[in-house]
Amino acid sequence: MENLALLADLYEFTMAASYYQRKMFAPATFSLFIRAYPPNRGYFVSAGLEEVLSFLDSFHFGQEDLDFLKATAPFSDDFLHYLGKLRFSGDLFAIPEGLLFFQDEPILEITAPIIEAQLVESVAMNAINLQVTIATKASRCVYAAQGKQLVDFSLRRTHGIDAGLKVARASYIAGFVGTSNVLAGRSYDIPLSGTMAHSFITSFDEEIDAFRAFAETFPENAVLLIDTFDTLSGAQKAAIVGQEMLRQGKRLKGVRLDSGDMASLSKGVKAILERAGLPDVQVLASGGFDEYKVAQYIKEGARIDAFGVGTKMGVSADAPYTDIAYKLVEYDDRPVLKLSTGKETLAGKKQVFRIREGGRLIKDIIALRQERLEGEPILRMVMKEGKRYQAKEPLSVIRSRFQQEFMTLRDDYKSLIKPQSFPVELSPGLRKLQRQIVREVKEKELGES
Amino acid sequence: MENLALLADLYEFTMAASYYQRKMFAPATFSLFIRAYPPNRGYFVSAGLEEVLSFLDSFHFGQEDLDFLKATAPFSDDFLHYLGKLRFSGDLFAIPEGLLFFQDEPILEITAPIIEAQLVESVAMNAINLQVTIATKASRCVYAAQGKQLVDFSLRRTHGIDAGLKVARASYIAGFVGTSNVLAGRSYDIPLSGTMAHSFITSFDEEIDAFRAFAETFPENAVLLIDTFDTLSGAQKAAIVGQEMLRQGKRLKGVRLDSGDMASLSKGVKAILERAGLPDVQVLASGGFDEYKVAQYIKEGARIDAFGVGTKMGVSADAPYTDIAYKLVEYDDRPVLKLSTGKETLAGKKQVFRIREGGRLIKDIIALRQERLEGEPILRMVMKEGKRYQAKEPLSVIRSRFQQEFMTLRDDYKSLIKPQSFPVELSPGLRKLQRQIVREVKEKELGES
Repeated sequence: MENLALLADLYEFTMAASYYQRKMFAPATFSLFIRAYPPNRGYFVSAGLEEVLSFLDSFHFGQEDLDFLKATAPFSDDFLHYLGKLRFSGDLFAIPEGLLFFQDEPILEITAPIIEAQLVESVAMNAINLQVTIATKASRCVYAAQGKQLVDFSLRRTHGIDAGLKVARASYIAGFVGTSNVLAGRSYDIPLSGTMAHSFITSFDEEIDAFRAFAETFPENAVLLIDTFDTLSGAQKAAIVGQEMLRQGKRLKGVRLDSGDMASLSKGVKAILERAGLPDVQVLASGGFDEYKVAQYIKEGARIDAFGVGTKMGVSADAPYTDIAYKLVEYDDRPVLKLSTGKETLAGKKQVFRIREGGRLIKDIIALRQERLEGEPILRMVMKEGKRYQAKEPLSVIRSRFQQEFMTLRDDYKSLIKPQSFPVELSPGLRKLQRQIVREVKEKELGES
Repeated sequence: MENLALLADLYEFTMAASYYQRKMFAPATFSLFIRAYPPNRGYFVSAGLEEVLSFLDSFHFGQEDLDFLKATAPFSDDFLHYLGKLRFSGDLFAIPEGLLFFQDEPILEITAPIIEAQLVESVAMNAINLQVTIATKASRCVYAAQGKQLVDFSLRRTHGIDAGLKVARASYIAGFVGTSNVLAGRSYDIPLSGTMAHSFITSFDEEIDAFRAFAETFPENAVLLIDTFDTLSGAQKAAIVGQEMLRQGKRLKGVRLDSGDMASLSKGVKAILERAGLPDVQVLASGGFDEYKVAQYIKEGARIDAFGVGTKMGVSADAPYTDIAYKLVEYDDRPVLKLSTGKETLAGKKQVFRIREGGRLIKDIIALRQERLEGEPILRMVMKEGKRYQAKEPLSVIRSRFQQEFMTLRDDYKSLIKPQSFPVELSPGLRKLQRQIVREVKEKELGES
C-alpha cells in the first residue's frame, strides 16, 4: 500500500503535538463502533479490517510528509523528528471480517501509545465504514434474491476508484458471485463477468449484425444486450442468432435486459427463447436494481436468472453512511467516556460474547475485556505490538464465514423494511463501571453529586 | 497517476476484442451527460475533468495487465499485443470545471478510435460522477450558509480514500474555505483546518487541563471542543482559559460545538464568551450539518461563525448518485442513438450555447457541434490527438470560475427544495437530426414506416 500516513484530519496532528509536548505517551484504547442502525437495518456485516491492518503494517512518515507538516502548522522540530521515527506498535482486537455485528458493539479496539492510536483514526474509520456499509447493503440484496445470482456492476458510479474496488470486495464477501470490475477481479481474485454495452449495438448498422459479431468473437460466453431499440424485438433477433449458433454446435449463453418493466418483459423474452428451442439461454437483468427492486421482481414472478446490481448497491443509496465513531475508552489504565448529548460512549476495553442455541444466533453481550461470560468471545487479537497476529485471510474464507453466520440469523432481523432489533445486552461488569464513571465525571466536570 | 487501465468493466474488453476481430477502428464519439436531476437539484457543477485528463495522459497496459486479461477471457494474442501498444489518441471537448451545467447537456465528448473511447468509459464516468455530485452538493451548502465559512470534515466517512481526497477538492471548488484532510491539503493545495477531538479532552484528568494544554501548544490557533460533558459548562471553562491567555497576551481563536441543539446552545456560548470579555472568540459548529441543517440554523439565528460540514456533504447523503451516462452518439461519421425505454439518447457530436443577459444566465441551447448559434459555446477542446490542449488549470482558477458563474444563476434555480428548472432547449439542427435518426432506426430495427 502506498504511504497514506498523511491521510488524517489535521486535528490528529495538532492533538499529537500537544501530547508530545506534555510527554503523554501512555497507552490509549480507542473503540470503533456504530452508534445506531441506518434506516431499515438491523445488523451489520464486518468488513474492511484487512485494509486497516495493511495500513498499520506500513504506517510511517516520509521526509516529504514531514516537510509538508512543518509548513502547515507550528509543529516543533522535536515533534517532527519523533514522527519521522514512528511506526505503529499497538495491539488490535477485532471482529473478523464476514461475521455479523450489531449497534454499539466494538468492531475494532486499538491499544497503543496515544499519539499512534490517534493518528490512525481517519483511515481506520474510513476503511471500516465503507466496507461495512456496502457489505451490509449487498447482503440485503443477496437475501432478497433468494438464490438468484447477483453480480456487482457498480464501478461507474461508486464514489471514486478506491470505492470501486472496495465495493467489489465487500459485495463478494456478502454473497455476490462476481464483479464487472477488472482491476478488482485481479486485486482480490473475484470472478469477472461482462456482457456488452448499447454502444456496441449502435456501432453496427443493424442490431443483429452486432449480435452476430459478438457471438463470433465469444462463441462460448456471449450475453447479448437486447433493449437498445425494443426489448421483445431484440429478443427475436437474439433467438435467430441463438439458432444460428446451435446449428454450428455453439450455444448462446444469455441475453440482458436493461430498461422498461423487466419483470413483465422477462416473461415475454423467455417465451420467445423457448419457442425458438433455446430454453437454456439465461436472462440477465440490470438497471436500477437494489434489494427492494429485486424483491419486487421476484414477487412478480420475473423470469430472470441473474441480476447485475450497480449504483444503488455501490453507494448504498438508501443509507450511504453509518454513524460510526472512534472513541477513547481508556487512557493510562483509566476508563474514560464522553457524555455529549445523544453520543454518550461506553468506557473501558471490551469484548463481545455471542450466544448461539441450536445453530441460531440468540443474543450478544457487550462486556469488559477481562470478563468471562457464556458464549463465544468474537473480538480476536489480530495485531500484537504492531505485528499481525495471524496471516492475511483469503477472501474465500471471509465469504464462507459470512454465508454460515448469516444463515443463523433469524429472518425477522433480516427484513428489508423495519427489521426487528437483535438483542444486545451490556454485561453486569460493564454496567457497573459505566455507572461509576458517569457519576465520577458528573461530579468532577459538572459539579453534581 | 498509477496505471489504472484495468479499471474498467469487463464488457469494455470483450467489446474491444470483437471490434478488433472485425477491424472496426473508425472514430467514435461518446457523450457523457446526466439524464435527470436528483431530488431537489436544478443544476450541476462541472468537476472531475482534470482526473479524466490525467488518466488519459498515462493510459497504457503493462505486461501484468495483459497477462491477467489473457487468463481472464478467450482474448486472442493479436488483440492483447494491440492493447500493449495502445495509447489514448483521441480528442476531448468538455465543459470546464467550475462552470454550471444542466441535465442532458454533454459535460464531456470523447472522439477516438472506438476501442480507445470504449476502454476509458468507466474511469471517465466514475471521475466526473463523483466530483459533480459532491461539488453540486457542496455548492448547496455554500448557498445555504449565506457567507458563513464552511470547512470539509468528511474524510472519516467518505466512500474510501480516493473519495476523501476528491470530496476535499470538489467542495473547495464549490466555495468551502478549507478541509481537515491533510493529504488533500498537500495534493491540491487546499487550506487546512483542524481543532481537537473528544479523545483529547478525555485523555486528561479534567476538561480544563486539556484546554490549557492545547492552548499552550497552539497559542495562536487553539479551537477548543466544549461539548464533551456539557456544552455550557465547557464554554465556562473555555472562557477561563481564554482569559488566562489574554493575560499572557495570547488570544483564544475559537470554540467548537458538536452535539445537542447547537442553534440554541451557540447563543448561550456566545453570551458566556462576551461576558468574559472574549467577544472575538469564534464559534464553530460540527455534527450532522448539510445544506438543510445549515439553512435551518441560520434561520433560527444561531450565533455560529463557521460550520464543519462532514458526512452528509461527503457522501451527498440525500442524492448519493446521478443518472450519469456515457453513450455512443456517432460512429464512423454516422450519428447514432438508442431508444431504450426512458433512456433515449441524442445523436451526433454536440455543443452547448449559453445565453447570458445583463450578467444573468438566461438559457442554454444544446446544438450540433458544427452549428453556430447565439451565446457562448461552453464545451472547449481540452485534448487533441491524445495531448492536452491547454495546461492543467490551477484549482484557484476553477474555484473563482465557479464563484463568478454561480452568482449569475437566479435564486429560484438554487432553491434547496424543489428548485425551478433552468431552461435548456434543443437547437433546430439537433431536433431535425434526432427526428430523422429516430425514424430511420424505427424503420430498420422495428419494421415501422
